[in-house]
Amino acid sequence: MRFVDLIEKKKKGLEHTKEEIEFIVSSVTKETVPDYQISAWLMAVYFQGMTEEETACFTGEIIKSGEVIDLSSIGSHIADKHSTGGVGDKITIILIPLLAACGVPVAKLSGRGLGHTGGTIDKLESIPGFRTNLEIPELIEKVKETGLAIASQTQKLTPADGKLYALRDVTATVDSMPLIASSVVSKKIASGADFVVLDVKCGSGAFIKTKEDAKKLSALMIGIAKRLGRKFNAVISSMEQPLGRMIGNSVEIEESIDFLKGITTPDIKELTYEIAALTLLHFGKAKTKEDAFSMIDSVIQSKEALKYLEKLIKSQGGNSEIITNYKLFKQPLFSFEVKSESDGFVKNVDAYKIAYACKLLGAGREKKTDGIDYSAGIKLNRIYSEYAAKNDTIATLYSDSEEKLNSAISIVKSAFEFSSQKPDDRKVVYEII
Amino acid sequence: MRFVDLIEKKKKGLEHTKEEIEFIVSSVTKETVPDYQISAWLMAVYFQGMTEEETACFTGEIIKSGEVIDLSSIGSHIADKHSTGGVGDKITIILIPLLAACGVPVAKLSGRGLGHTGGTIDKLESIPGFRTNLEIPELIEKVKETGLAIASQTQKLTPADGKLYALRDVTATVDSMPLIASSVVSKKIASGADFVVLDVKCGSGAFIKTKEDAKKLSALMIGIAKRLGRKFNAVISSMEQPLGRMIGNSVEIEESIDFLKGITTPDIKELTYEIAALTLLHFGKAKTKEDAFSMIDSVIQSKEALKYLEKLIKSQGGNSEIITNYKLFKQPLFSFEVKSESDGFVKNVDAYKIAYACKLLGAGREKKTDGIDYSAGIKLNRIYSEYAAKNDTIATLYSDSEEKLNSAISIVKSAFEFSSQKPDDRKVVYEII
Repeated sequence: MRFVDLIEKKKKGLEHTKEEIEFIVSSVTKETVPDYQISAWLMAVYFQGMTEEETACFTGEIIKSGEVIDLSSIGSHIADKHSTGGVGDKITIILIPLLAACGVPVAKLSGRGLGHTGGTIDKLESIPGFRTNLEIPELIEKVKETGLAIASQTQKLTPADGKLYALRDVTATVDSMPLIASSVVSKKIASGADFVVLDVKCGSGAFIKTKEDAKKLSALMIGIAKRLGRKFNAVISSMEQPLGRMIGNSVEIEESIDFLKGITTPDIKELTYEIAALTLLHFGKAKTKEDAFSMIDSVIQSKEALKYLEKLIKSQGGNSEIITNYKLFKQPLFSFEVKSESDGFVKNVDAYKIAYACKLLGAGREKKTDGIDYSAGIKLNRIYSEYAAKNDTIATLYSDSEEKLNSAISIVKSAFEFSSQKPDDRKVVYEII
Repeated sequence: MRFVDLIEKKKKGLEHTKEEIEFIVSSVTKETVPDYQISAWLMAVYFQGMTEEETACFTGEIIKSGEVIDLSSIGSHIADKHSTGGVGDKITIILIPLLAACGVPVAKLSGRGLGHTGGTIDKLESIPGFRTNLEIPELIEKVKETGLAIASQTQKLTPADGKLYALRDVTATVDSMPLIASSVVSKKIASGADFVVLDVKCGSGAFIKTKEDAKKLSALMIGIAKRLGRKFNAVISSMEQPLGRMIGNSVEIEESIDFLKGITTPDIKELTYEIAALTLLHFGKAKTKEDAFSMIDSVIQSKEALKYLEKLIKSQGGNSEIITNYKLFKQPLFSFEVKSESDGFVKNVDAYKIAYACKLLGAGREKKTDGIDYSAGIKLNRIYSEYAAKNDTIATLYSDSEEKLNSAISIVKSAFEFSSQKPDDRKVVYEII
């Protein structure tokens, strides 16, 4: 089999056979094909797509390219969750202790961010001392001990995906449905969970812009998982506006802690409850959505979920005193308050602009090797439907550099839209599949 | 400027600016961009195309990437010709002495073959002693002395195209109109001729299958050349059947010599006369096509053109006695005569099948480093519209390997189609642009 013939075949829009897919993935894994042929094939896939069967086969081969975690020693109902990425998305940090408190163990692998803010792992690493580079046996051990643990993704899982992703990133072939789907599903299956909820985001702050595309991607991922013998659910959610008030790294940990203390915003609450309820229903922990919702209410009110977060931080070497004292986080050198220029209700806060401003402040990274300023970020003092009088603070910017601070101000200002009338309540979850 | 953003832009179907094209070509030439980004961009170009303006700009930059030959010391009416490639295409070998005999000097650069048979340079190298690796000053000197010379392409001209082509070849991105057009036109302009006739072939034995695509490509190449200040003409010709009777390397030289001795087939004659006439008319050597045709007739009848071939061979170190004694070519170890299985007129000889058989016999190369068997090839004892009785020889196969010979027989047989009625005369030239 010659790789160039497979590029030609995909270029013509034909479907690869199982043998061809095996050859492609093993060539990538064993590095027996030059990158320039892989990238040409990836671009052909971008234009011609892959069928669900082809994508499932591709996903299966990516899984086989590395280790598959066996979590059966923990139990038979291990939950996992994946977000396609959004601005201010701290749901994982909230969800893990919440589910653990409801009796669902979570052994989670998460990624670092390569974009406007850090990933879940970067956010957690803003907690002084918190260690995420757990080996798999250590991760399993910690889940057995405390009911929850989270580690940074290891190269041992789906190495083919790691190689493909690195190449996609520099060849403008990230935004291809079958490539996204196979990357997500392979990682989730190799991570060993029994049930996975996908949070598929769409809107200005997500890489998927339309509800329609989010539904297509969700259906594809669920379809692939099913062909590979796994049950996935998906929540299609809005990413037109940032999630919650806080966008950055340590500030998002603070907002997550607030949630578990009972202080939150409607969008975070809605999304967290929906994802948690799907998991509780799947594992029979609740019989109805209402049951699930009251279970969640109760572990928040009793501070049981907050205790699990404390356990998690302690277990992974972090300073759990940050739960009661946010000053223990590294503090930014500079801050700036953006004032409202008139009176009105917030009609929209553009997620993309806020994310872009956050990156300028130092909260994200451009290249994998870049450092992150954990204290950099934005607090939205006013969010959707809240009223601001002229000169009220609508946002607060944090950074270690005054120059960076100044570069972000006008962008944050332009992200806000006001209306003289209070807008209707909005739903963040569009659909559950 | 980041290369990945340019890939993204082309992927979205947008037009590159002049500055972007400059950046792309200079990155390729200076090797400041990794091949995997170039190949992704090439595949995006395959799917999204380039406008004529974009392609002309791209072509201009490719020309600037290397040397441009200045032929002005020879005179002001230097002709050149380019074929997009066909089976049994020996027109260049015939045309050069023909035009020289008509007073039009030709300084030609040609390529080696990477396909079913050798290229013009390979064919010429089947002449014992013939040397094609002339440096440009030597090429010019020889044209001044004898009126004609031919050299193998040098890396000094259009190096960006050399790099792009090598990558296109292994990433299934050869068959893209703007990439083909820019490659051909850049090489022709850098070669320095004042006027170029393009022979754009379509059909089973060409990489362009339809007349429509051949017309599009021709119009694009002529349009680009015009934007770059040069006059090109194009002949759209059929490549459904091989040109003439001989397909291979030395056998094609024999057929070229035969032509200049006045022995030929209708298809070779038609195509050669059309291309030569366009050139003679352009340079004012003839006032009408009829004048041009009689001029050509006369230099063949007078053996003037044959003398120019002799001059060419001698001037480039070849044994010109081969003109009178074909046995001086390396002779094949084995041959095989394919017999007709019934009575009938030849209705079609499939060019692709004949080419494929030729490669099996050893006349072409798979990789650049492969050797060529100069004596391998096929003689079509019967061509279009000729009658074959049962058991008449319809084709003769030549090879240095009996095994190779056996592998080609059934393919050659299957290339022939017969009819009980003599088919109408066919035209090989569809259109002149």
